[in-house]
Parts: sequence; structure tokens; C-alpha cells
Amino acid sequence: MAAPVPHVAIVGAGFGGLRAAQALRQAPVRVTLVDRRNYHLFQPLLYQVATAGLGPEDIAHPVRAIFRRQQNFEFRLAEVTGLDLARRTLRTTTGELGFDFLILAPGGTSSFFGLDTVEANGLPLKDIEDAVAIRNQVLRMFETGVQEPDPDRRRAMLTFVVVGGGPTGVECAGALSELIRLVLTKDFRGLNVKDVRVILLEASDRLLAAMPAKLGEATAEILWSKHVEVRFGASVSRFDGARVSLQGGEVIPARTLVWAAGVQASSLVAGLGERGPQGRVRVEETLELPGHPCVYVIGDAAWLPDADGTPLPMMAPVAEQQARCAAANIVRSVRGEPQRPFRYRNRGTMATIGRNAAVAHVGGFAFAGFFAWVAWLVLHIVLLIGFRNRLVVLINWAYDYFLYDRAVRLIHAREIHTGPAEARRPAREASAAGAG
Amino acid sequence: MAAPVPHVAIVGAGFGGLRAAQALRQAPVRVTLVDRRNYHLFQPLLYQVATAGLGPEDIAHPVRAIFRRQQNFEFRLAEVTGLDLARRTLRTTTGELGFDFLILAPGGTSSFFGLDTVEANGLPLKDIEDAVAIRNQVLRMFETGVQEPDPDRRRAMLTFVVVGGGPTGVECAGALSELIRLVLTKDFRGLNVKDVRVILLEASDRLLAAMPAKLGEATAEILWSKHVEVRFGASVSRFDGARVSLQGGEVIPARTLVWAAGVQASSLVAGLGERGPQGRVRVEETLELPGHPCVYVIGDAAWLPDADGTPLPMMAPVAEQQARCAAANIVRSVRGEPQRPFRYRNRGTMATIGRNAAVAHVGGFAFAGFFAWVAWLVLHIVLLIGFRNRLVVLINWAYDYFLYDRAVRLIHAREIHTGPAEARRPAREASAAGAG
Repeated sequence: MAAPVPHVAIVGAGFGGLRAAQALRQAPVRVTLVDRRNYHLFQPLLYQVATAGLGPEDIAHPVRAIFRRQQNFEFRLAEVTGLDLARRTLRTTTGELGFDFLILAPGGTSSFFGLDTVEANGLPLKDIEDAVAIRNQVLRMFETGVQEPDPDRRRAMLTFVVVGGGPTGVECAGALSELIRLVLTKDFRGLNVKDVRVILLEASDRLLAAMPAKLGEATAEILWSKHVEVRFGASVSRFDGARVSLQGGEVIPARTLVWAAGVQASSLVAGLGERGPQGRVRVEETLELPGHPCVYVIGDAAWLPDADGTPLPMMAPVAEQQARCAAANIVRSVRGEPQRPFRYRNRGTMATIGRNAAVAHVGGFAFAGFFAWVAWLVLHIVLLIGFRNRLVVLINWAYDYFLYDRAVRLIHAREIHTGPAEARRPAREASAAGAG
Repeated sequence: MAAPVPHVAIVGAGFGGLRAAQALRQAPVRVTLVDRRNYHLFQPLLYQVATAGLGPEDIAHPVRAIFRRQQNFEFRLAEVTGLDLARRTLRTTTGELGFDFLILAPGGTSSFFGLDTVEANGLPLKDIEDAVAIRNQVLRMFETGVQEPDPDRRRAMLTFVVVGGGPTGVECAGALSELIRLVLTKDFRGLNVKDVRVILLEASDRLLAAMPAKLGEATAEILWSKHVEVRFGASVSRFDGARVSLQGGEVIPARTLVWAAGVQASSLVAGLGERGPQGRVRVEETLELPGHPCVYVIGDAAWLPDADGTPLPMMAPVAEQQARCAAANIVRSVRGEPQRPFRYRNRGTMATIGRNAAVAHVGGFAFAGFFAWVAWLVLHIVLLIGFRNRLVVLINWAYDYFLYDRAVRLIHAREIHTGPAEARRPAREASAAGAG
């Protein structure tokens, strides 16, 4: 009789979890992917949902549709509530799930560095609901701002502070300024554009720290030309919903603060071993958890120092390359072959700063401007999952580009409740979840 | 010195309010449109959002974008909380608004005929949040159903009851059955399609009562061929979230009930005069409120019996024709000319029952089937507001048609919160609203 087929459980349907499951397509294993969402989210375009350029449906794709043809694949919509590595069992909101191999790809969550007032009143940007909340807030501030007679209160409503000079903060600030200056000024005829401010706060003295310094400088210049006030050495200490307080005493009256400054590993990996920067858990070079040879951690939750000691960035390409490595190591394990260490190949990084402008660092070359922007567009269209999503995003982008418009300026006025009976339990509980 | 320009306030950005504002484009008046939403919703396609065929953004268009070029137009995002007809003033959540003429087009809301358990546990289908809640519920029931070992509990999860044999109920049941049989059965490989039921309950003995009887019969036949169980003489008395109870004692185990059986006029018109069927307020033939010559009520909220005494149907064409009549009567008033009575011209009605099938009643001709379906598609594409919406809807429909797929099978797992500070007030309060 043949040995039973080994069971691989994968937690998280982000870039890492998705690629791991795909890489095991032909492997002699059964795969179960667990996530609290039924869709894969294309996070690099999340800021476009926040700034009304795309709808939530354009950048998400149902997991089941992606794996329709993969025979050894199963999906379970559930939240992982605990791990029992000794018993090789996951505890989930829909019961236990045993495994022979485990790939943990739970991703990261926003980190507020203990700034409780910012966590309470600021808007993070990590998932679809965050993005829609930002879109709602920006559009509502314009609707109430035009009706506000007091000039100081009105200016505070029309001041938008983005915190964090990484890719998310830069892209969000650029897109926000364009939304306002190219679109909303046409919609709100009574509006004085001089009342509007978009401010990007960065604690260090450079933007896009992962890129060469000259691209950070170019980015600041482009943002400035788009009327984004770029402020360096600016650390937020407090935000009460009406005023942003900086260390050093400066106070900026603003009703909106978008938090793009911190990410930390999912709490799912909290008790699993040595923790590194951003709460990531230390993994072996083979991506296994030390002492647990069949448990792999990949992506934002994993801490693997580079050759020069710096942790790998929290980016989709790292997660995807680690996914392929972990999947290959599982196959080697099944076959009784030795594991191989992970090596990251940096194929380049890019960020877009709005219409006609982006920066890219590819193969040792650093370039900024229109050509980088076109490359960014093409790459992101190609990487989107699903032909329909690509087509619809392409139409939306072309439309916005030529008509200086934005697609989806809808304010969801009422909270979206999720259904009757059990579905009306408190949301975090009712939602079943793997990725953090 | 010239007389001051008369001010026309319009409440509601549905079909009636929108057309009224547009009809006053060249008129010697100022127009202020008040709504709690910042968008116009194309309600006839709402059931497609509920059944994952279209995204919310595809069938909504920002009011400000529609009126960008209309110089005498202003928009106010606010909820109307009261009327002071003597002082000619609207009370809104953002302050008072005086008017010389008023057009009330607040639309309707779901009516549960006092069935508290149905109101508490059933899912209405009147706005975008309702539609997304239905989509969430249907998809979640499939995700939990495939994990449910108990066959009776599983079948209850996979039984979907639609109440009401009008256009909304018919279209929703047909689309739901196709979503399940053509799409979800491919996504959920472990699913036994024999566990799935879609049931349409109608209290009378015919569907689409506003159409000729033979079209109602054809509709029932088509639904039946799509595996929808059509039940006549079936009145719901209770729904506890797990069982639908009918008058007469029958009990259907089902976890999902979509309520498309009752609509009533917005509560905004409650104290304004004689009330007719469905809480609609009686209006003069000129559409004016009796005793209030400058106040017009149009659309679902207005009660104007036809020549044979039946009230006009709650349909977009009625609201739009009344909007043009009210606008013209206001212009006549301003010029000192006499008002003219409203005459409804019935240009036809249609309903779609899914792939390749619709029924239509146009110019005395009743037809059903593929040709009616093509006519329905073309008409609805043309009537959608915004070229971009048309294009994206066309792509989604073509894609679904040829690939037997659906666009937006996303479960919004967590409630979408609406922003910081004041925006986190209870939702109904935070939302500003004109149309009911």
C-alpha cells in the first residue's frame, strides 16, 4: 500500500501563501490554504483604492477562482487562532487542521509604535476596508469643508497628513494631491484650493530609504512640484482627530491622518521563537523555524538577515521567492533530499508618485520620471491577477489619464453590515482569518 | 434692480431628483440638491451587485460629477431631518436651508409589513450596503457550508429564499441561481449541487403583476428551468435566521432570506397630508402638495391615482416623467403662467431572468426570451450614467457571458468603518441623508 499523501497547510493568501500553493501544484502533496478572506489582495495598488482611482473589486481576486484547476488544492475560509506545533495542528475558527508541513505566510499589520492617540484617530492602510475608510474620510471632509463657514475649521478639514516616507506614504501622498488638484477642484466649485494642504511627514531625512539616495531626492522634488509639503525630521507624537502634534512642539491643525509609517509581523508568529526587528520571527536559511524542521515562515513575518546583516525588506518579491524556496524544500523533504538555503535575488524596486512620474531602481540603474512611470504601469498591469481585473484597471487608468478624472468617488455612508444572524457578530470575530 | 433668483431645493438624488435638477438647467432659478449620499445609484442593477455580477462602483456615479457643467446647481451632502413648510425651510444635519420651491423625491424604503423577525434577520435590497451584505452572506454560506459535516445544517446554509415576485425578486432569484449553478459549483469542488436550493416565494398567484399575465407565466417557466423553486400563495410569517415559517404552517430550513416583497414611501412625507397605499402622500394633478402650491412630491413618495384609480407604479420612468413635469411647472410659476397636470406615458416595462432570458411589455406587445434579453441589455447599458460605467459594465457582462464567470465574489469580512473621530459615530447618524 502506498504511503498517505503528505498534507501541507499554508496560512495566508498574500503573495507568499499564494505562490507557495502554486509552486506545489505538481508536488506529491495535498495543500490546504487558510485565510480569513476569500480573496487575494494586490496590495501594491491599495493606495489607489484609498484615493478613488480604483474600486476594491479591481485589485482583489477570489482565491477559489485562482486555484480552480489545481487538483491537489483546498481552500478553507477561517481565522487561525493558534498553533500546536508539537501536535502538528492549527486551531482555526472552523475547527482544527492537522498538517505534515506548514508554511506560515501571515504577513504584517500596521504598527503605531505605542502612539495610542494615532491608533485611535489615524487611518492605517493595510487592507481593503482601510482603503475604503480613507476614501470615505477624504471625500467627506470635502463635502463638509465646503459647508463650513469658519476658515480655521475649514482649513483643518482640508488638511491631509500622510505619515511615513516609504513607498506607501509617497504613493498615497502623490495620488491624494492629484485627486484633489485635478479632480475635486472641478467638483467643488466653491472651494478655494489655497485652503487645501497635503503634508507628508518623514521622521528621517530621506524618502524611500530602500532606494539609492538620489531617487529619494528626485521623489521629494516631484512630490513638491505636485504641491505636497514634504517635511523631514518630523515625528508624530499625538493626533486627537483635530490636531497633529509633532515631537518638538509643532502642531498642525488637520482632521485626517493617514498612517503609513510602521508595519509589524502578524501576532500569529509571536510565540514561535527569537524575534527580530518589527516582530518578525527568526528563521533558518532553509526558511524553517529553528527546532521545527517541517514548519516554514516566509514573507513579512520572517526575519532572515541579508549577507550584510540587514533584514530583507517587507516586499512582495521577497515573499514570492521565499514561497518557491519553501515549496521546493518541502518537496525535497518528501523525497528524502537535503534542504537548500534561501538566496534573495533583488530584481529591482519602483514607486510611483502620480501622473507621469515614478522612480525605479533596476539592475543597478536608478532612474526617475516618465519612463519609470510607464515601466511601473506596464509591470503592475501584468502582475495583477485575472484578465478581467487587468482590463478594467487599464480602462480606469486610461480614462483618468486622458480625462483627469477618478473612477470611484463614492462615500459609503453607512457601515456595511455583513448579513443576518451569526454574520452580525462583532466583525473581527465573525470574519474568519489567516493572514494578519 | 432685478428680483432675486428663486431658489429650488430638491431632496433626493434618485431618478426623480436627478432629472428634476437637470430639467432646471436653463431655468431662471438656483438649484440645491440635498442627499445623504454623494452618488446617484442605478437601482435597476442593484440585484447584480447582490449576486456578484457587478461591483458597487459600477452602478453609482458621483452627483457632483454629473452636474459639473450645470452653473445654477449646488449639491449639499446632508440628511433632511424635518420640513417647515410655513417658513419654507428644510432642516438638515448641516443646518437649515431656505427655499422658494421644493421638490421632494425621497424615494422609498423596504417595508416588512410588521414582520419583526423578518426585519431583524432578513436582508432587504434597497441600497448598495444591502446589496453587498447579500453578496457577503451568500458567499459566506457557501464557504461555511462546504465545511459543515451535518447534512441538515449544510442544506439550510445552502438554501436561499427570495421573498417577492416583483421585478426585484424575480431578477434576484434568477441571478442567484445562475451564480450558484454556473460559477460557484466550479469554485467549490466538494459541493453537492443537490444540497442547494433557491426558492422564490410569492404571496399571490402570479409573478410580475404589473405585466400581462402571460409574461408572468413565461417568467415562472424560465425561472423553473433555471432550477428556481417558484412557490405561489406563500406568505412568510416568521424568519428566525434558521427557519422560514409560512402562513399555513410550512417551515423551510434556510439561513438566508432576501426580502424583495415590500416598499413604502420615505418617512419624510409622513406628516405632509393624506396618505395612500404604501405610505405615499397624495398630490394634486400638478404634483403639488394640496395646500402648498410651491411644494412638489414626485416618484415613489407621491400618490397620484391613474385614470382607472390605481396608483402609478414605483418605477424610475414614473419618477423621471414627474420630475420633468414638476420642473416645468416651477418655471411656469416663475413666469406667472398656469400649471399643467401630469400625464404618465407608459413606454413599457421589462425584467431580466438571467442568461438569455427576459420579459418585456412595450407598446402593447408582450414578448419573452432571448430577444427581450438583448433589448434589456442594450437599454440598461444606455441608461447607465457615465461612459466609464457603461464600458466597465459591458466588459463585465461580456466576460461573464462567455466565460460563465462572475466578477466580484469578494466577502468584505470586516465592517467597513468610515473614518476617524466624528466619522466613527453610529453609522446612521454619521451619514448625512436626503433620499430615504
